[in-house]
Amino acid sequence: MEVVQILHMNKGNGEASYAQNSEVQNKILAIAKPIIEKALLELLGSNRVMATESMGIADLGCSSGPNTLLLISEIMDVIHAQLSSGQLHPSSSSMEFRVFLNDLCSNDFNTVFMTLPAFYNKLREDDRYKRLFGANPNLFISAVPGSFYGRLFARKSLHFVHSSSSLHWLSQVPPSLDSKTGTALNKGKIYISKSSPQCVLDAYSLQFHEDFLMFLKSRAEEIVGGGRMVLSFMGRPTLDPTTEQSCYHWELLALALMSMVSDGLVEEEKVDSFNAPYYAPCAEELKSVLQKDESFIMDRLEAFEIDWDGGGDVVDDQANIVNGFEHDQMVAISGKRVAKTIRAVVESMIEAHFGIEIMDDLFQRYTELVTNHLSNRRTKYINLVISLIRRD
Amino acid sequence: MEVVQILHMNKGNGEASYAQNSEVQNKILAIAKPIIEKALLELLGSNRVMATESMGIADLGCSSGPNTLLLISEIMDVIHAQLSSGQLHPSSSSMEFRVFLNDLCSNDFNTVFMTLPAFYNKLREDDRYKRLFGANPNLFISAVPGSFYGRLFARKSLHFVHSSSSLHWLSQVPPSLDSKTGTALNKGKIYISKSSPQCVLDAYSLQFHEDFLMFLKSRAEEIVGGGRMVLSFMGRPTLDPTTEQSCYHWELLALALMSMVSDGLVEEEKVDSFNAPYYAPCAEELKSVLQKDESFIMDRLEAFEIDWDGGGDVVDDQANIVNGFEHDQMVAISGKRVAKTIRAVVESMIEAHFGIEIMDDLFQRYTELVTNHLSNRRTKYINLVISLIRRD
Repeated sequence: MEVVQILHMNKGNGEASYAQNSEVQNKILAIAKPIIEKALLELLGSNRVMATESMGIADLGCSSGPNTLLLISEIMDVIHAQLSSGQLHPSSSSMEFRVFLNDLCSNDFNTVFMTLPAFYNKLREDDRYKRLFGANPNLFISAVPGSFYGRLFARKSLHFVHSSSSLHWLSQVPPSLDSKTGTALNKGKIYISKSSPQCVLDAYSLQFHEDFLMFLKSRAEEIVGGGRMVLSFMGRPTLDPTTEQSCYHWELLALALMSMVSDGLVEEEKVDSFNAPYYAPCAEELKSVLQKDESFIMDRLEAFEIDWDGGGDVVDDQANIVNGFEHDQMVAISGKRVAKTIRAVVESMIEAHFGIEIMDDLFQRYTELVTNHLSNRRTKYINLVISLIRRD
Repeated sequence: MEVVQILHMNKGNGEASYAQNSEVQNKILAIAKPIIEKALLELLGSNRVMATESMGIADLGCSSGPNTLLLISEIMDVIHAQLSSGQLHPSSSSMEFRVFLNDLCSNDFNTVFMTLPAFYNKLREDDRYKRLFGANPNLFISAVPGSFYGRLFARKSLHFVHSSSSLHWLSQVPPSLDSKTGTALNKGKIYISKSSPQCVLDAYSLQFHEDFLMFLKSRAEEIVGGGRMVLSFMGRPTLDPTTEQSCYHWELLALALMSMVSDGLVEEEKVDSFNAPYYAPCAEELKSVLQKDESFIMDRLEAFEIDWDGGGDVVDDQANIVNGFEHDQMVAISGKRVAKTIRAVVESMIEAHFGIEIMDDLFQRYTELVTNHLSNRRTKYINLVISLIRRD
């Protein structure tokens, strides 16, 4: 599978689109916000940026939907607050901001671009910005399509780099698992599972190491000394990559696929030959790669629990009724929401391998499995956030 | 009409797409090529670029289709030839190229982005580049959505700016002609016509002056001293804006619309209230605006005749049979091609005003009118190319 050509969040603004189903990713952005703010404030305070005429900001894996421009708003808010508090040099108000939105070439950038005129207008009409920047908010947004596992930007052109809900995607399925001629090593599964042999775990871990190292090397060229990077992605809390928190959403998808195999709707070989280009690393793996590259200092590493459904409405295990809904109804709503969120993210890949015709049936089965699971226990994702400083 | 929100070349790769119907624009690129090359060579020779780590290149109004990346290929070829001829400093091979593709937010950038992986691969496999740049061609392509009648890029970030087949589009319909409540000033016409009153001619000329001045002011901020700009767009050879060369393709489209009015298929008021946001200026108008801004020196201004159909197959007026086709057949083929080219360019605007349901009928009538016209005389477009130097 050519990940860089196939992987994209569901396009447009329809019911199955990522734009309509990215609550979890929105929650993750909110959780990382204080860490982003702190890194930005330290960067602005260091005068590394103020010495230049323009500040380069990149969002890697920006996707398309309401979250895409949210980060830019947040960053502009922080910069505005700093400028207007008088803590920065007065000449800073003439500073310009080059914002680069990156995602793979198949990302739905058209939908992002259609929202830009309204976004610029809102900034222009915001009195806070008007007071500081005049009629022009000095913000220049561009899109940079391509894989972040390689160079994307000119040398030393960036001051702040952010990535959310993206770095858990690998550049490719680990090659030893992707061979079409070889033996299926991960039978009946599509990601690391309790029943996966050690070689599957090793192959995934190795691919992550190689990818993350390439990511750091590429960014090290592009980010100025003292520049900052805040990365937020799915991870795991323990060394063991087979815990529920690390991989159970994939386990249930594999179960849904295997139930279709049982019903004669999908060939078993199809399931055996599919493995997700995904990896949820632990802190130790991140540190090990960071030590190998040495271009960045780790300022902070934090782990957060995230509800599978983004925690929009909390299912209260203690009470039977929440918001007028019975507990079972709440779980069913939650299960649907989780399945739609996952579908918006993984459908492009699953469809490329299994064909479009099984999608509705597959995600119906997945919804039921997720709902059943959630009625027993509320497994959560672990989201890791790391804040890095580019060495001089 | 909100030009910046509506105007876009027909999307995708289908039969009616701009990608499949941009032969004329390709021809225009070919004609401007020697002028682009000369400007680039002078720029590279001036050491203005070599003193920096990266060269900023922008294509304004890049559209989507085979022409979009053609210019980048041409520019890279010129730079490569200069580098490999040893005429530039050896350190230049470490230079990086920031390429910005600009068009309005509604442009089909997704289709452009899908062709990027193959484009990068071709460069990587090209032995000429390999020898110079190693595995990485040091080329970073991004998209900058927005109107070029305003700032798009950070201060002094560009060295070379190009625009082809775009600057004849105005930022808006001249306001005095767009008023929905006012009297229709240009009855039965959709652009300047022999029968248009002087106030229509003046309104168009004024809008062009304001737009082109704003264009120059914006670029003056973004381009470094000594930086170059080559602009190529539809124009006219004389002061009179009502000559056939200047406006007859619009005249025939108005005739097609009015024939639908006669048949009760379109309301006459609809035609009266539509005017194209287009202007074909003459050299004197360009010079007058350039004198007002003073940021740029005009290095060169040339006018070229372009066949309405891009001149793919020449209809030979002397002979009856060309390429085995009768003369009439050739004219019919040519008429169809012209109508498809115009449709791919103007359909988004026409459709927004008149509704999608009349499009096929309208362009069928247009095809017939164009074919009839071409069987009488071969009217041509005039394409102007100007080469400008940013003053220090």
